[in-house]
Amino acid sequence: MSLSGLPFDDFRALLKDLPGPNPVALAAARDRDAQLTKPPGALGRLEEIAFWLAAWTGRAPAVTRPLVAIFAGNHGVTRQGVTPWPSDITKQMVANFSAGGAAINQICMTYDLGLKVFDLALDIPTGDITMEPALSERDCAATMAFGMEAIAGGTDLLCIGEMGIGNTTIAAAINLALYGGTAEDWVGPGTGSQGEFMERKLKAVETAVAFHKDHLHDPLEVMRRVGGREIAAMAGAILAARMQKIPVLIDGYVATAAASILKAANPSALDHCLIAHVSGEPGHLKAIERLGKTPLLALGMKLGEGTGAAMAAGIVKAAAACHSGMATFSSAGVSTKD
Amino acid sequence: MSLSGLPFDDFRALLKDLPGPNPVALAAARDRDAQLTKPPGALGRLEEIAFWLAAWTGRAPAVTRPLVAIFAGNHGVTRQGVTPWPSDITKQMVANFSAGGAAINQICMTYDLGLKVFDLALDIPTGDITMEPALSERDCAATMAFGMEAIAGGTDLLCIGEMGIGNTTIAAAINLALYGGTAEDWVGPGTGSQGEFMERKLKAVETAVAFHKDHLHDPLEVMRRVGGREIAAMAGAILAARMQKIPVLIDGYVATAAASILKAANPSALDHCLIAHVSGEPGHLKAIERLGKTPLLALGMKLGEGTGAAMAAGIVKAAAACHSGMATFSSAGVSTKD
Repeated sequence: MSLSGLPFDDFRALLKDLPGPNPVALAAARDRDAQLTKPPGALGRLEEIAFWLAAWTGRAPAVTRPLVAIFAGNHGVTRQGVTPWPSDITKQMVANFSAGGAAINQICMTYDLGLKVFDLALDIPTGDITMEPALSERDCAATMAFGMEAIAGGTDLLCIGEMGIGNTTIAAAINLALYGGTAEDWVGPGTGSQGEFMERKLKAVETAVAFHKDHLHDPLEVMRRVGGREIAAMAGAILAARMQKIPVLIDGYVATAAASILKAANPSALDHCLIAHVSGEPGHLKAIERLGKTPLLALGMKLGEGTGAAMAAGIVKAAAACHSGMATFSSAGVSTKD
Repeated sequence: MSLSGLPFDDFRALLKDLPGPNPVALAAARDRDAQLTKPPGALGRLEEIAFWLAAWTGRAPAVTRPLVAIFAGNHGVTRQGVTPWPSDITKQMVANFSAGGAAINQICMTYDLGLKVFDLALDIPTGDITMEPALSERDCAATMAFGMEAIAGGTDLLCIGEMGIGNTTIAAAINLALYGGTAEDWVGPGTGSQGEFMERKLKAVETAVAFHKDHLHDPLEVMRRVGGREIAAMAGAILAARMQKIPVLIDGYVATAAASILKAANPSALDHCLIAHVSGEPGHLKAIERLGKTPLLALGMKLGEGTGAAMAAGIVKAAAACHSGMATFSSAGVSTKD
């Protein structure tokens, strides 16, 4: 793997000239859908998913190598006492992913999804965003470039998830920087911050955005100043998927914040993405609405690890199977309307 | 198979004395959940599903033999011109299920679900509910008994679905009979009734409920008078599942109407059931709310065939896999809160 990366300027150039959907593949999928043995529209969002797969892969809808990519990072802002969980857990959970003991492993087995875990310098937490940038431009760009390698082995459906103690604080700071409002609008309990932890979490997000306020007009500066390594890597992975015609499922509150950076840089940057689910984190639905998206699932999950994206991958697999496997009215000898 | 069936009196007796959940298995599942490597509650409804499986199977949560049962019937009320689709389609779609060409086949393959199709005397449509009962008590009871055979081969998760041209008209009549209101509250486009078809559908539902109005205080009478064979068979299958400790996923508007008959007969009769999804049929959410349930999925599907229930079975499988397969904090060496 290469950590040398590209500087921000190269990412800015990429973001200015993103490939669009494939109208021929989309038209072919719509044409086939109209012939399938069901009333038009009867599969609801499953039909929309099939069209989305066609448009962004440029091929007939299929999911043969789905992949969940989990990006794990640690955060200097945990020094502000924003969460009751120790940062050691990030590394312990990465070991749990490798051993097959986490929720994401069970969901991947259920739906036959590949899993890759990217451990992002866990022994070197990012800077404490309340008093310094999380990352230098060089480190942030290198981490974005590293995230782009998520797709290196080949996949046709990329599920983006994360693990990182403290990273709902980071996600709230990104949302406050991008969208404004108050810290209360964007800070939630995350994995269990209540009482004094919640007070400190609110204070940390307010302080961080105030500290960096003169630099937050630029989305990539938001990412490096109040973001983190898993944020940068997820943004890189989503961007790489776009370049390589790979549709993306975005997981929960933190993954959505990473995606929002790209959307702020280019309004069409997430057109190849679906939001997998709305999580139990209170600010998530507001953040999704800012992206103009409708989540596929609403199961009250708030675990991260890509678990919501993996659940949605099960839905996407079924949608592709219906589109590709169903008989047509003529092949099945089924009558049409009187 | 036996079509002799039980008379209504025997079903009334069954419905009065339904087995309850297993508190020991439920407590064991809650205890295990608290030890899994995730914050409490972080899997949201997946946790609730695991508890539901434990409570109603009396065992540790597992889904090893999931089954989709589709019940197909034809309806005399189609003579009223309530739908643009010919009744022949019911039989043609049953053939399509057998040939593997329908949407439900693809979803069953995606999630490794068994599929059984019950063809209910398709050449003998039920009576036209606008002027006569759909079924005699004897035929209705025999069809309920036949539906109970859905679980005969063994399953640990039963998905209930249907196929029947005209049966959203039937479901609307059941809802109007059970819950009151107006025909407009319960009649929707179904698989594509618009304009004059919709006018006739509204009129048929109003006329049917008015015609039978002196007999609709009794839920089983509602079923035989304004119901149909697939309605009776689904009610029988749901009841048989309860007796045999099998959790049930209810599909869309028509399957929910069948379930509602049982709920009207005994308020606890659906405690072993989840509503798989809210369909695109406008009256479905209202009917679900009358049952005091929250659907698992909202994907705008409105196909029937058990497709929504099968999608939800994918969710239930993942929930069981998380519960049974995840490591505990102690086994994985993951720290707990500071």
